Amino acid sequence: MAYINENFLKLQAGYLFPEISRRVKVFGEANPEAAKRIIRCGIGDVTEPLPPACIAALHRAVDEMAVRETFRGYGPEQGYDFLREAIAQNDFQRHGINIDADEIFVSDGSKCDCGNLLDIFGAGNRIAVMDPVYPVYVDTNVMCGNTGSAKTDGSFEGLVYLPCTAENGFVPDLPATPVDVIYLCYPNNPTGAVATREQLKRWVDYALAHQAIILYDAAYEAYISTPGIPHSIFEIPGARDCAIELRSFSKNGGFTGLRCGYVAIPKTLMGKKKDGGKHPFHALWLRNHTTKFNGVAYPVQRATEALYSPEGQQQVKDLVNFYKGNAALLQAALTTAGLKVYGYTDSPYLWVRGPQGVTSWQLFDRILDKANIVTTPGSGFGAGGEGYFRLSSFNSRANVEEACKRLSDKALFVFG
Amino acid sequence: MAYINENFLKLQAGYLFPEISRRVKVFGEANPEAAKRIIRCGIGDVTEPLPPACIAALHRAVDEMAVRETFRGYGPEQGYDFLREAIAQNDFQRHGINIDADEIFVSDGSKCDCGNLLDIFGAGNRIAVMDPVYPVYVDTNVMCGNTGSAKTDGSFEGLVYLPCTAENGFVPDLPATPVDVIYLCYPNNPTGAVATREQLKRWVDYALAHQAIILYDAAYEAYISTPGIPHSIFEIPGARDCAIELRSFSKNGGFTGLRCGYVAIPKTLMGKKKDGGKHPFHALWLRNHTTKFNGVAYPVQRATEALYSPEGQQQVKDLVNFYKGNAALLQAALTTAGLKVYGYTDSPYLWVRGPQGVTSWQLFDRILDKANIVTTPGSGFGAGGEGYFRLSSFNSRANVEEACKRLSDKALFVFG
Repeated sequence: MAYINENFLKLQAGYLFPEISRRVKVFGEANPEAAKRIIRCGIGDVTEPLPPACIAALHRAVDEMAVRETFRGYGPEQGYDFLREAIAQNDFQRHGINIDADEIFVSDGSKCDCGNLLDIFGAGNRIAVMDPVYPVYVDTNVMCGNTGSAKTDGSFEGLVYLPCTAENGFVPDLPATPVDVIYLCYPNNPTGAVATREQLKRWVDYALAHQAIILYDAAYEAYISTPGIPHSIFEIPGARDCAIELRSFSKNGGFTGLRCGYVAIPKTLMGKKKDGGKHPFHALWLRNHTTKFNGVAYPVQRATEALYSPEGQQQVKDLVNFYKGNAALLQAALTTAGLKVYGYTDSPYLWVRGPQGVTSWQLFDRILDKANIVTTPGSGFGAGGEGYFRLSSFNSRANVEEACKRLSDKALFVFG
Repeated sequence: MAYINENFLKLQAGYLFPEISRRVKVFGEANPEAAKRIIRCGIGDVTEPLPPACIAALHRAVDEMAVRETFRGYGPEQGYDFLREAIAQNDFQRHGINIDADEIFVSDGSKCDCGNLLDIFGAGNRIAVMDPVYPVYVDTNVMCGNTGSAKTDGSFEGLVYLPCTAENGFVPDLPATPVDVIYLCYPNNPTGAVATREQLKRWVDYALAHQAIILYDAAYEAYISTPGIPHSIFEIPGARDCAIELRSFSKNGGFTGLRCGYVAIPKTLMGKKKDGGKHPFHALWLRNHTTKFNGVAYPVQRATEALYSPEGQQQVKDLVNFYKGNAALLQAALTTAGLKVYGYTDSPYLWVRGPQGVTSWQLFDRILDKANIVTTPGSGFGAGGEGYFRLSSFNSRANVEEACKRLSDKALFVFG
């Protein structure tokens, strides 16, 4: 009989977003009138249509697929050259960053990349994650056996948790014990924090000194507006020898339903063999990507390319500014209500501190009950998120304005 | 320093298709005039445009993504209900097969599914593959550590190879030693063979008796025209308790560049825990799919749905019949040349036996040199393919007619 992968059984049954859905459903059944007023500011999904440049590119590519002469079958698994070159030029080389087109691997999104990258790492690595953390980093490590069992607070044995607090600006201190793989995400999900050049340099220097690898998730890079904040880990000298960067088109182009992202792996990035020898991660990922993946749909690659056209760039800027406008309104409302709000200046997320002694789920339930707004409880991202909630600015302006009216009420946050 | 996954290093450097490309390139550089005449019948990639029903569905879905009211962001990771239901009804229920919509997991293609399915299996399973075999089955098992090292003939320690020969009709005999996971692919790549109901029943009975799991790859199902040949493993009583089926839209709808496939996992299918307990594979795959994947692009799901419309069904039938017409022409030509040809009646592939004592690469080089046609050497699919070559019928009619002229020459296959 076939054995199952029992690592899966270590995962908690109640994953964050299903539990939120359950509570919203229970509330809706008990309060059918209030349910009609519900505004969802929980999950980070975009709401605005695709940029017109992408729509035009999609239609053109679909028409190519309708004619024998221009039809495209299997493409290169790593992505078409036209897209890899557009990415390398616009996201890196134009900013003076040394990343080549053949160091770009186009994929159908960061969630896949995040999980699949673990395929090329061996057993025995000590893995560090931020706390609070995007749950996929943790869950994929649990599933492939890189952790022990779950503890009562929801954290896992064998992982090194790096506390991200208001005191350290949600950028963790270096670990006390050496680690081999470090997940960093800036602009951060869920805290909305960014890391300065000096802070990232400290991490790159650490990784170089300890020959560790940084998995740098820059999915929200387009939301950075503060001058001087790095948009890529590869802006930091030495990062080519210690980092992999993940990017997504979900939150800049609004591709959550179209699916495209990429991984940048420098050819100089080496991993360790048990005999002490070294081997390039680029070669391993090339083998993994070409063996287990067959490329992103051709029309989607053309739509992604269109994001880098002059019109596309302007349309992305408008889209991002629209959501950032939402974030500013929400920030003002919550400040009026007397809460301390983090994130939001360089991120689509607001990370909101509730009153002293109130738990994240108490905040969630109160805001759902009284304001009919769905948030994400901070504790869902790890013990370090307790006492906070996350608000997403991905919404229509009308919804955001209505949400602001309801959230600016000081009485909403009086407990006990 | 981070450890790499050293299992990757067991893989052979010279993967089949890159080696073919290399030889074609060398030939072309030495023979620039002949290079212009090259006809590619090697890789199994479709050549005809997408069915008009798909094109129309793609345009409609793209237009929906252009308007706020109809825009779709994240969809269900397992696929939209409209598609899961169309699949369950048309591929299974309409034929009296008991597979529910929530047992269907839509993906971006069988190559991904093939690799990712191994995530939910534990270590210690004895794995059987056919010989010759689609290389992805083997390579993905090597990469995740389910095998030992490569042997000199290219096979791997620790795998159980099931010989598929002209004598057994390319349907393997039951293994002498018990196995836990069995890869079966019908219609077969590369041999083009199909398995009868009785042959599949023998395998299902074996799997039930040994509590083994059959991974059934039915990517070429649409090419079956012989009455009575099963289109799905789930036509065989008991298969719900021992099988997973993989399907692809690459070869029926011509989706090699659009990317869509699915896995059917019955809820009744159980795996074994080390303590002797059981656990459903469906729950594991649901967790894997929702954690590491974010769904197929919405327009692609609508295009796939369109394959099941009455027009779509007719257009798929026409497309498949066109390629089958190519296969019939190629078969006739090779028979004229005095070769024995297998497959082709229920498959887009011809599996061709060369003259006694001639190797697959000798055949490849001869056909490239003299007829300027690219084939796939049978030995590239495993030791069991030695002496054969695979010909793909995915091509334009003009190319096929020209290829037939060149291949029907008896002198082409005279060696020594």
